Amino acid sequence: MRAYDVLIIGSGAAAYAAAIYARRYNLSVGIVEKSFGGYTAVAGIIENYPGTPKMDGFELMEKMKQQAVGELGAEIIEGEATLVKNEYHCFQVQSSEGRVQSSGKGKLLLQAKTLILAMGMEHRTLKLPREAEYQAKGVHYCATCDGPVYKGKPVAVIGGGDSAVKSANQLADMGAAHVSLIVREENVDRAEPINRDRLMERVAAGKISILYETEVREYLGGPPLQGVRLNKTVSPPLAEGGRGGVSDTINLNAVFIEIGAIPRNALAKELGVILNQRGEVHVDPITMATNVDGVFACGDLTDASGSFKQIVTGAAQGAIAATSAYRDISQHGRACEMHAVAVPPPMLPAVT
Amino acid sequence: MRAYDVLIIGSGAAAYAAAIYARRYNLSVGIVEKSFGGYTAVAGIIENYPGTPKMDGFELMEKMKQQAVGELGAEIIEGEATLVKNEYHCFQVQSSEGRVQSSGKGKLLLQAKTLILAMGMEHRTLKLPREAEYQAKGVHYCATCDGPVYKGKPVAVIGGGDSAVKSANQLADMGAAHVSLIVREENVDRAEPINRDRLMERVAAGKISILYETEVREYLGGPPLQGVRLNKTVSPPLAEGGRGGVSDTINLNAVFIEIGAIPRNALAKELGVILNQRGEVHVDPITMATNVDGVFACGDLTDASGSFKQIVTGAAQGAIAATSAYRDISQHGRACEMHAVAVPPPMLPAVT
Repeated sequence: MRAYDVLIIGSGAAAYAAAIYARRYNLSVGIVEKSFGGYTAVAGIIENYPGTPKMDGFELMEKMKQQAVGELGAEIIEGEATLVKNEYHCFQVQSSEGRVQSSGKGKLLLQAKTLILAMGMEHRTLKLPREAEYQAKGVHYCATCDGPVYKGKPVAVIGGGDSAVKSANQLADMGAAHVSLIVREENVDRAEPINRDRLMERVAAGKISILYETEVREYLGGPPLQGVRLNKTVSPPLAEGGRGGVSDTINLNAVFIEIGAIPRNALAKELGVILNQRGEVHVDPITMATNVDGVFACGDLTDASGSFKQIVTGAAQGAIAATSAYRDISQHGRACEMHAVAVPPPMLPAVT
Repeated sequence: MRAYDVLIIGSGAAAYAAAIYARRYNLSVGIVEKSFGGYTAVAGIIENYPGTPKMDGFELMEKMKQQAVGELGAEIIEGEATLVKNEYHCFQVQSSEGRVQSSGKGKLLLQAKTLILAMGMEHRTLKLPREAEYQAKGVHYCATCDGPVYKGKPVAVIGGGDSAVKSANQLADMGAAHVSLIVREENVDRAEPINRDRLMERVAAGKISILYETEVREYLGGPPLQGVRLNKTVSPPLAEGGRGGVSDTINLNAVFIEIGAIPRNALAKELGVILNQRGEVHVDPITMATNVDGVFACGDLTDASGSFKQIVTGAAQGAIAATSAYRDISQHGRACEMHAVAVPPPMLPAVT
């Protein structure tokens, strides 16, 4: 069994920022990582992380890892975490693979005084052929993050809920040449009335077209994406690529998929953490505390910044969660040490 | 008169992050800047901004400026902002110098649909000779930010309130060789009881010494700082530098000054924004909205992340404030345009 002051579950910007801050408080830190870098690592070029003009997301995450692991000595445990024991200030978690850096394999039992949950969300995809190839090359999930790249270019938003309508409006405001809102249903009644009103203003201004009862069947060209094939024909000017005026394909440089995201909340549920209606972990936005003592959460998994989920907000929430974990350990003492008789010496010797 | 969608008052990480996000929403953005870079620019080497391993704070702020101004076209107006008119979605602000980039001088009237307040705080200093020379070279204001550099080295905290006591505890936990808590009063009764208890535990463990009724008279050595002269003598082992066992000087590599900070809230007061007891702008931590319609705030000026004020939290709050300003303008239309008859065309042509 390996014992830590703080065990961080996740591998994105929130998780690594938490690790950086926790190590700087001289806490021992384990990071249980399923796949490196979270959503940032696969999001392509990042232009909106303040202080980092244009950098591939994978490289940005490598820099965070270099800080947390290379410089500060946080320890990576590969695998997926499941809960074994939830005692006050003595959590036990099992990693599915358990490989600690390169020190062999096998399921591994981990013990921690505090937990920081930072597992993020899984974006729902269209499950079309070659979808993974287009990831960050025309297939996107965040208009705020990637919309500005498509100024002056035709794009589409896929979805009919409030997020889809807001993203369509936003892409129009950001200066897309044209936005097609591709809606499976026959209306956008699930969106908030005020966002529907704004949508209709932009439709009237010729900036947005709504295609109801329409689905994308195929990604075309590239990668990068050059268009999509629909389940029905559309007329000009959308059907630029067609013959005889109508076509089932439209030219596009990007689609923004807004059909929901599923918070990775299984471990949170095991811990008895309160979730909101969307399944996100509910936290105090000032401290990142959950309702369970000693359990903090940050990043896309949480409702800490509402539905606005960015690399910089996740990183800030990670820093806050680590600070709260430090305060918590400092306040409640080191309860886990009672169990530590049979445990190897702490990974990271305290410098005094 | 120059008209903007968003006028950002301030020049630190929160202000520039807000500018980056607001420009990406295709809003026209002015930044009224008194002195470039805020507290980050003078904080020395930054090691805790996730994704940026070891960088001088000035360089980090230059990178943010490059994003906001160089790449995205936000406009800098030098000077200090005072309020001229506070109408619903049509604010007028006057800049004391008014120099827009290098286009001449003179007081300048600015108009904006939304304001983002990001003026930060002024740290109280000891007002000792050469204090500015030691800034970030042994004289610090943030244990979380700069404490880890002094692992294994003797440091002092100056102050007797809750922040001072917490910083002393934290520096001890971070592995400082020894922490001297230099208190002008005869007790630390202003600190919260739980933090006093933790202080006494660390005093008992020999990690912290408290010097009551003591003041620093002079910074010694360097820069970087090598010690301080006190208003009284102390005994060994603190008085390592002394002869005959006692001395009025102690060897130190750093002092952390924790005697308070004054939020730069003059403009907020003019606007009728609600402040908390510490004079910080009170914001909704999810949206950065103040009580005044169209006025948002972020960074050290605010209570958005309690008393935990970091570059990354300020940057995240700036991103959120810009997003809220975009939503606000999108929702309430463009009221200011009614007044825009006599105003030059928008700085930044919309790309459609």
